[in-house]
Amino acid sequence: MAKDKKMVEAITSMDEDFAQWYTDVVKKAELCDYASVKGCMVIKPAGYAIWENIQHELDRRFKETGVQNVYMPIFIPESLLEKEKDHVEGFAPEVAWVTHGGLEPLQERLCVRPTSETLFCDFYAKDIHSYRDLPKVYNQWCSVVRWEKTTRPFLRSREFLWQEGHTAHATAEEAEARTIQMLNLYADFCEQVLAIPVIRGQKTDKEKFAGAEATYTIESLMHDGKALQSGTSHNFGDGFAKAFGIQYAAKDNTLQYVHQTSWGMTTRMIGAIIMVHGDNNGLVLPPRIAPTQVVIVPIQQQKEGVLDKAFELRDVLSNFRVKVDDSDKSPGWKFSESEMRGIPVRVEIGPRDIENNEAVLVRRDTHEKITVSLDEIEAKAGELLDTIQNDMLERARAHRDSHTYVATTYDEFVKTINEKPGFVKAMWCGDQACEDKIKEDTAATSRCMPFAQEHLSDKCVCCGKPAKKMVYWGRAY
Amino acid sequence: MAKDKKMVEAITSMDEDFAQWYTDVVKKAELCDYASVKGCMVIKPAGYAIWENIQHELDRRFKETGVQNVYMPIFIPESLLEKEKDHVEGFAPEVAWVTHGGLEPLQERLCVRPTSETLFCDFYAKDIHSYRDLPKVYNQWCSVVRWEKTTRPFLRSREFLWQEGHTAHATAEEAEARTIQMLNLYADFCEQVLAIPVIRGQKTDKEKFAGAEATYTIESLMHDGKALQSGTSHNFGDGFAKAFGIQYAAKDNTLQYVHQTSWGMTTRMIGAIIMVHGDNNGLVLPPRIAPTQVVIVPIQQQKEGVLDKAFELRDVLSNFRVKVDDSDKSPGWKFSESEMRGIPVRVEIGPRDIENNEAVLVRRDTHEKITVSLDEIEAKAGELLDTIQNDMLERARAHRDSHTYVATTYDEFVKTINEKPGFVKAMWCGDQACEDKIKEDTAATSRCMPFAQEHLSDKCVCCGKPAKKMVYWGRAY
Repeated sequence: MAKDKKMVEAITSMDEDFAQWYTDVVKKAELCDYASVKGCMVIKPAGYAIWENIQHELDRRFKETGVQNVYMPIFIPESLLEKEKDHVEGFAPEVAWVTHGGLEPLQERLCVRPTSETLFCDFYAKDIHSYRDLPKVYNQWCSVVRWEKTTRPFLRSREFLWQEGHTAHATAEEAEARTIQMLNLYADFCEQVLAIPVIRGQKTDKEKFAGAEATYTIESLMHDGKALQSGTSHNFGDGFAKAFGIQYAAKDNTLQYVHQTSWGMTTRMIGAIIMVHGDNNGLVLPPRIAPTQVVIVPIQQQKEGVLDKAFELRDVLSNFRVKVDDSDKSPGWKFSESEMRGIPVRVEIGPRDIENNEAVLVRRDTHEKITVSLDEIEAKAGELLDTIQNDMLERARAHRDSHTYVATTYDEFVKTINEKPGFVKAMWCGDQACEDKIKEDTAATSRCMPFAQEHLSDKCVCCGKPAKKMVYWGRAY
Repeated sequence: MAKDKKMVEAITSMDEDFAQWYTDVVKKAELCDYASVKGCMVIKPAGYAIWENIQHELDRRFKETGVQNVYMPIFIPESLLEKEKDHVEGFAPEVAWVTHGGLEPLQERLCVRPTSETLFCDFYAKDIHSYRDLPKVYNQWCSVVRWEKTTRPFLRSREFLWQEGHTAHATAEEAEARTIQMLNLYADFCEQVLAIPVIRGQKTDKEKFAGAEATYTIESLMHDGKALQSGTSHNFGDGFAKAFGIQYAAKDNTLQYVHQTSWGMTTRMIGAIIMVHGDNNGLVLPPRIAPTQVVIVPIQQQKEGVLDKAFELRDVLSNFRVKVDDSDKSPGWKFSESEMRGIPVRVEIGPRDIENNEAVLVRRDTHEKITVSLDEIEAKAGELLDTIQNDMLERARAHRDSHTYVATTYDEFVKTINEKPGFVKAMWCGDQACEDKIKEDTAATSRCMPFAQEHLSDKCVCCGKPAKKMVYWGRAY
């Protein structure tokens, strides 16, 4: 495979330097680029097409649960941001401030939204009057800005794209049910579409969202053993409703506060796809999210009939997202380029294949080659895409499970965190002091208190006091 | 129809006060609301759903011509905005400036993008090397900010949603062809989907985009006789390429500048739909863009079998965007609400209809009622939606044509503009002085030099010098 070398050599091995490997993949697969604005991204066509597929599939699932899309302003007046105390404390240090409009200074500073709870609350306070107006189950697709100090493409940037759902309900029970419903929706999406297995659980008070009563999270594990918070769903109770005066007349004519939730997923999931599935040849895309699922590479395309056959195959495979690479590059170059871009299935078709009425299907994930008759290529390609999708999820799950450890003593805990990248399950007393100590000693944070609790021991792994919860710990992006 | 009165009475008659009628429709049809941020909109579900349909249909048409979507940063450093002289002069007075990130002042001010030519140019300068990298045909969906002094929902606001396409080509001919191709795409979209007829033409130098060599436009006429610029497509020649140093190695190995275009359509088209098609009962949506195309209103829904039949009909009509209004409001209230929201077809079904195996279809645009057999309701509803779509376009065209006047003397011109709201076609010498005088005397501007030129006289309608072009003039939003 000498011809493949050119592009393959161009990226750092993931075992050698994972961070550099990540940056190389982002660049070579043409997913995004740095912008002139420090810490901001230019999302290129190959990256944005993945985001469009994420949007399309999430939006479809949202709408099935009654979500309606809306659009709120990009700016939040300073006085509005300050209405909920915990919220402003959490966000004010990292917002961008607009101070001038045109040639004139503004009377009040506006921040570029870091998240839109305050805008939705302001709107709901005006728009909700009676129980008949409830529930409100709104969502918006937009960009948000957080003035981060250190940034990495997709994972942490000063501007990123996301959706943010914001709901208002008559009762606490309904708000809690919606919070959990959306967390499960995110989890199913990650597992079924992105082939990324997740741990579902609740954040500790230290790690929860600024202003939330409870934050639920899905946590995934990257190939290097670091955790990634992959989606969060917050139950605000009636805290924001009280700060913003969002009340409704109940059926019994009493005035009640609404109960609220919010939930979001971002472009950082593109980073997760890279870091869960990628390999030393580049990106590996799960078929269900891949902008191109099948690429057809003609061999000896200058020979009569080869290109015609390639385009004929494209039509046969038109139920999939399929492309012919008829550029004037060599087949070897095309092979390594399609690998770098993570296209799940490559079809190789040359004069001899045509003679034999067959083609070669090559799996991106395992490099396995399968020769199939042209008469059944559509069925075979479909089966192969399904198989790849399932295998990718199972491989990621096996990797996650084999990198999930248990610690019952603090020595064991610290040693595991330091020596074995991955999740560490350990008991916790519920005290923030232990989280602080663990973070200082190991740089690990509590990722979540999983819904699937296990009893590993009676004592907190850190202080030895009686344990309240089993917690997933890990170093995280 | 006494029951209908409640909502109908709530809006101002369009003949009495068109501006107030517009505001009433925006509010009562729940399309958008004012935000706490002055001049910004909250786009509500009914409004955003129209925008989603516009996006979906435009995006599909874009991609058929090879457009790829990307995402550029929300911020433009001041030094970048200043690189092209005409461009910065046009936009600097109306941008919002970010001066602080988190707790610290920025070293360089950033503006919130009013449009993204400078960002695309900056990116293209790094990304384009050879003729093999061309053409670049990129687009992004985003929001932009322009610090307007007076604002109106959808028509002019400090933030609005749009798409902006930005392309780079090897030759001037290719750039010009793309500029015209996108203008025609916009025109076809307006006519075929929004049922809004447009005049295709070129802007005068006075009215063209800041930094463009040529701006093409589609102009439509609102019900009150005022014009609305509905989409623009700009040919930049190599002006931006020279300012930003965007060069490529041609096949003959010489270094050449690229030729660029940009083109955009915005949420103001929702305003156009309201003002072209709306009536005194509220919004009237063309079927192809309506989020709900058919609403089924059960009559005496408490009677056995009525609601079941209504939901059965929903399933029969599931090829359309269909809803049952099974709320506990009265049929009369539901009728006027569905009219206010502009739903193209209403199906009324009650016990007697069920007995007769029929239902009543009511057109939103003409209020015409048609009784159809339930056995053929799907076919009849489909035909009716097509008829409505066509009739709406033809009515809008007839209105536009009957409000398009010709003037050959200045007296006639001024009198027509003042007394007959609409377009005035008149000859022009090509001098900006005449445009300035006309604007001062009549508040009318040159809307475009239409591609379909007519020879109305030999002389400029303003100064009497030899005429160069026939121009559409009018007061505009």
